[in-house]
Amino acid sequence: MRLTRYSDYSMRVLIYLAARTEKRCSISEIARAYGISENHLMKVVNDLARGGYVASMRGRTGGLRLARPASEICVGEVLRLTETDFDLVDCPSCLISPACGLQGVLGEAVAAFLAVLDRYTLEDLMRRKADMLALFASRNDGTGVAITPAE
Amino acid sequence: MRLTRYSDYSMRVLIYLAARTEKRCSISEIARAYGISENHLMKVVNDLARGGYVASMRGRTGGLRLARPASEICVGEVLRLTETDFDLVDCPSCLISPACGLQGVLGEAVAAFLAVLDRYTLEDLMRRKADMLALFASRNDGTGVAITPAE
Repeated sequence: MRLTRYSDYSMRVLIYLAARTEKRCSISEIARAYGISENHLMKVVNDLARGGYVASMRGRTGGLRLARPASEICVGEVLRLTETDFDLVDCPSCLISPACGLQGVLGEAVAAFLAVLDRYTLEDLMRRKADMLALFASRNDGTGVAITPAE
Repeated sequence: MRLTRYSDYSMRVLIYLAARTEKRCSISEIARAYGISENHLMKVVNDLARGGYVASMRGRTGGLRLARPASEICVGEVLRLTETDFDLVDCPSCLISPACGLQGVLGEAVAAFLAVLDRYTLEDLMRRKADMLALFASRNDGTGVAITPAE
């Protein structure tokens, strides 16, 4: 079971901006930090801006930052925006879908899934922000850092 | 968010066999019923047989049937077998995964998702078995049937 890469990258952008609240960030800096394509991030960042999660300022002192505090950005809400849908299987192509109970059961399971995510904010993901910053820095300075895995 | 096509087809096979308990079925018959490739179903059926969900009998009177009653086949258990993993995003490729809280939160959401599916059996999906059989028959005889959508 997978979320789209688009959702994955959207969460990465928000997490990066939540880690670097002291400064304005650029798309190329975020792409470099994660080792992913800058092109892939353009649409992600535009859509996060349109959704009211990211503020984008033009000009020499411009850049990206969170549009609201991380404590006010709900993980479930973000993923509802970034996922095209939560239709886990291809029921529309299936002959028996009008009578089959699978869709309803999967729908109930997805609701339970999202209910958990609705209880968490971006801030909850940042409990080890200092370690995250050290990991980001390790890519830039090439030293590497030893961080014990998150629980 | 998507399950793999492999899981989708596994559920389709089990639902077909649960609808046609009065007879032995063939892979080609199931493929025709859903309008999907027979080749794709070969591995699905083999793995369901290995998992103890489908019994396969050789010979002239042979064919496929459920290896246990539909009421003893748990939906959550089947999907745990058929999904490669429930790693929703690509954390292993992400620099900050040792310190990031996203993995834990998604893991909790997946656990809630599976807990719902663990409460349902294949039998629960078959409440409108007569309508399902009518829909399968409509493909064979080309008449089409009007069935109101499942709730």
